[in-house]
Amino acid sequence: MSRSAAEQPAVMTIAGTDSSGGAGIQADLKTFTAHLCYGASVHVALTAQNTTGVQAVHAPPPEFIEQQLRSVLDDVDIKAMKTGMLFDAKSIRAVVRILKLYYSDRGRSVPFLVCDPVCVSTSGHTLLQADAVEVMIKELFPLTYLLTPNKSEAELLLSQHDLQASIESLEDMLRAADDLLKLGPQAILLKGGHLTVSMRDVERITLSNPELRVVRSILFEENMEILQVAEPDPASKEIVVDVLRAPSGTTLFARPRVNSTSTHGTGCTLSAALVCNLARGMTVEDATREATMYIHLGIETAVPIGKGYGPLNHMHSLTVRSVPRATASNPHPFTRLLIQGTAGIWKEYVEHQFVKQLAQGTLPRECFIHFIKQDYLYLRYYARAYALLAAKSSTFPSIKSATDTIINVITEVETHKAFCAQWGITEAELLATPESPATTAYGAYLLDVGLQGDTSKLIMACAACLLGYGEVGLWLKKEAARPHSWVVTEGNAYKQWMDDYGGEHYQNAVRVGIETIEAMAQADPPSPVRFEEWKGIWERCTRLEKGFWDMAINLA
Amino acid sequence: MSRSAAEQPAVMTIAGTDSSGGAGIQADLKTFTAHLCYGASVHVALTAQNTTGVQAVHAPPPEFIEQQLRSVLDDVDIKAMKTGMLFDAKSIRAVVRILKLYYSDRGRSVPFLVCDPVCVSTSGHTLLQADAVEVMIKELFPLTYLLTPNKSEAELLLSQHDLQASIESLEDMLRAADDLLKLGPQAILLKGGHLTVSMRDVERITLSNPELRVVRSILFEENMEILQVAEPDPASKEIVVDVLRAPSGTTLFARPRVNSTSTHGTGCTLSAALVCNLARGMTVEDATREATMYIHLGIETAVPIGKGYGPLNHMHSLTVRSVPRATASNPHPFTRLLIQGTAGIWKEYVEHQFVKQLAQGTLPRECFIHFIKQDYLYLRYYARAYALLAAKSSTFPSIKSATDTIINVITEVETHKAFCAQWGITEAELLATPESPATTAYGAYLLDVGLQGDTSKLIMACAACLLGYGEVGLWLKKEAARPHSWVVTEGNAYKQWMDDYGGEHYQNAVRVGIETIEAMAQADPPSPVRFEEWKGIWERCTRLEKGFWDMAINLA
Repeated sequence: MSRSAAEQPAVMTIAGTDSSGGAGIQADLKTFTAHLCYGASVHVALTAQNTTGVQAVHAPPPEFIEQQLRSVLDDVDIKAMKTGMLFDAKSIRAVVRILKLYYSDRGRSVPFLVCDPVCVSTSGHTLLQADAVEVMIKELFPLTYLLTPNKSEAELLLSQHDLQASIESLEDMLRAADDLLKLGPQAILLKGGHLTVSMRDVERITLSNPELRVVRSILFEENMEILQVAEPDPASKEIVVDVLRAPSGTTLFARPRVNSTSTHGTGCTLSAALVCNLARGMTVEDATREATMYIHLGIETAVPIGKGYGPLNHMHSLTVRSVPRATASNPHPFTRLLIQGTAGIWKEYVEHQFVKQLAQGTLPRECFIHFIKQDYLYLRYYARAYALLAAKSSTFPSIKSATDTIINVITEVETHKAFCAQWGITEAELLATPESPATTAYGAYLLDVGLQGDTSKLIMACAACLLGYGEVGLWLKKEAARPHSWVVTEGNAYKQWMDDYGGEHYQNAVRVGIETIEAMAQADPPSPVRFEEWKGIWERCTRLEKGFWDMAINLA
Repeated sequence: MSRSAAEQPAVMTIAGTDSSGGAGIQADLKTFTAHLCYGASVHVALTAQNTTGVQAVHAPPPEFIEQQLRSVLDDVDIKAMKTGMLFDAKSIRAVVRILKLYYSDRGRSVPFLVCDPVCVSTSGHTLLQADAVEVMIKELFPLTYLLTPNKSEAELLLSQHDLQASIESLEDMLRAADDLLKLGPQAILLKGGHLTVSMRDVERITLSNPELRVVRSILFEENMEILQVAEPDPASKEIVVDVLRAPSGTTLFARPRVNSTSTHGTGCTLSAALVCNLARGMTVEDATREATMYIHLGIETAVPIGKGYGPLNHMHSLTVRSVPRATASNPHPFTRLLIQGTAGIWKEYVEHQFVKQLAQGTLPRECFIHFIKQDYLYLRYYARAYALLAAKSSTFPSIKSATDTIINVITEVETHKAFCAQWGITEAELLATPESPATTAYGAYLLDVGLQGDTSKLIMACAACLLGYGEVGLWLKKEAARPHSWVVTEGNAYKQWMDDYGGEHYQNAVRVGIETIEAMAQADPPSPVRFEEWKGIWERCTRLEKGFWDMAINLA
């Protein structure tokens, strides 16, 4: 399968519109999008419609329907498709003609065609002319993989062929599904939303038909006593049962009945969801279980829209990413969001007076000495934080990565001691230095986050230090390279410090750090709550970093 | 704002279709859905179209366009709308007539109308007849909040009014945006995708126009040196600049240029995204920044579809929920998924031989004694796990909740000791009992998860014990209530144990436990990776619980 087909299989609807957006092609495209499928659509008819009824219908000529189908099929690799409102016999013939031309005539079978035999709108408007029903049965059903009638549509189709039509019980549904199968489709999903049944009925029918499979969604599932809501007589509770008659056998899909007026477009949405699930390679049973739950939750989570029967909620299964996908032009979206989201305090940190004075060579010697002494004490916390990270890690690579950082810090401490010696500070003096509150605050916060959170939080806590010094190093390097720069490099006692943080060695560590947090955010896209937690830790540490340099400047 | 308007503001597109799904109304509906807005659509024209070109156009009569608009506006509270392909003068007049009737004539202004003045398709097909341009300017522009022309559309509109038309530089864009504003819209977003410019041009124009604001998306943002990809001459890199001329001033929106053929439907998608952002109450500047980034990422993450200029990816910002929303019929979706996802091992746990023999009164006395001794040792780990949870908690209610559980366990241990005494086990014997490997494995695993993970993982680790014993208690209670039950209550030495776990006190704790993990999954919807981590811990603990009863049966 190509990348596009695996990520976003292309599907198509051949149907009518609903201007108000709850049913028809609009519902199909919304459902396709909610299933992350790529949707194409062929317009057989337009309706001026809303939640109170259908006000007008306009149908383009059959030739134009044919041309739309050709345009799609010439260009897009359709994995599954559906038909909805087909309006009249001419339109059906146009659709069948093109499907045969592109598939049957070329020796291929039509990819999963779900036929929703829409005949009458909920509000009673005729959406399929009388003479068209027989054309649909004769010409379209043989190409159909799955037919999805409701009670009245099934009754209409059966009566057309003088089969016993009336459907009033589960037994009637089983018989009707069997009979509908004789009309040509490979499988039948007879929808039971217009029938009132209970689990008692399901138990009765499975007793006399032991080969029946039953899928109970949110209903009396095994070993879930703790989730059953106490009811006086659960077996008589009203439920909805759909019957799937497939070559692999017959399955009843039972779920609780929802009392709701938000049912506009339920049939369109169900068949569109089935198309997406089939396009992804699900079995017809799995596709049905998932699609029926999708509409069930769509009805139950609907928000009120319109004055009549409102649409179901097509978007209940979606969340919007807090961190965009990484792309070539934006390879580090998470770090970018962190910096953007804390721009003020981040600027105060990386363009701190301490840094500016240091770069100009005007930083008082005692401030720098205070800083490097406290930095020594801070590094001990920092090493311990990575030791805690190693202890919290669950793979050898992540244990090694954290351990490498500890080793790096220990090596850095040796360099640090040599550096301090140049400034006249002995090791004994370093060890005897009392810890400033700013150092304790920052160091203890790292370990507290490490105790409280998972590895991701601890990684976030350690990031502000690593990335901030990297930013300072690069900024000073860039500024120093400008003509007549304010950065003093000749005879600046702090030049080595600047060179270290702007240098390749440290910048490599920064790159690894950025890749680590980006990989984390892409692999486990954070919810808004989790994103705020991560950003909160980043911001706290940015503030503590600023506080560290405040401390150095103020000799606090 | 009503619940629906806040959660899913209703928006409308008045435009033409693209059967292949990448542009037009299809792109609009996909964009609306990706922005979690409720979309309605009025079809002005249908096209048979694909990524290689437009093959045919069909337009319904103006009266039918009017009726579609009436159907929507009579029923749905539209917060913002857009126009796309309007095809001809008659259609435009029909749209304007209805908008005036429903808004201007009633003394209300049209809610945020974004007019995308589509004239010619990318492939060169005329989508707006020549005489219609003037009608659009004269009649539709006065109702327009934001006009979004590209270079050629702007040139066409300006030449129509004998204004200087040619747009070849940023300076031309500023002048053109000013001139277009005179044609009636309240704001102009002049799109720069067809112009080649660089940051050097932006710097030049901001020098001579210091009042200009510049929004740089993924470009040279301040204090982000660590994210700049090294380039020989970044200032001359090709970028895209859109110019927004609004009452509040002029803003340039700069972003990297993406070399891609996946640009079919970019204009439609941009205006649809603007509509959603305006409907949510964003300023026009914020709406533009977000919408331009949406199409930028849409182009960059596009998957190949069709043979020509493929569509952008409308779904890059979406993820599908791992745990469904909680609803009235399914108040505990997370717990349900956990049990469903580990059904086999869960059943082996809650219907364990130990439990069955206990319920029948046939469990050997030494097995039960071994069990309650080890249970005593396990409870010590369990109390410590909650102590760790308290230490990891960040609010007083969560600290209290964990502490309450410790107290409950300590109280339970007293009862446990009394219970053991009834079975002839002294406290000294309890303390001297060597710990079985199954006890150590389970207890130490709890503390290990507690060390490794955040509070959510520790809560998951403690859930299998709480919920499993609850399930056993309810199951045995239900089975005992059946006529001729296999559960023996009369003279069963283990009756009290069954009564305890089926009783109100313990079941209350189970309910609180379920609510806790459900609230956790709803507040911080887990990514697929995180969901699998949670489920993995649940499964491990289920297995360890089963191992605990194996140990009791085998006296291991």
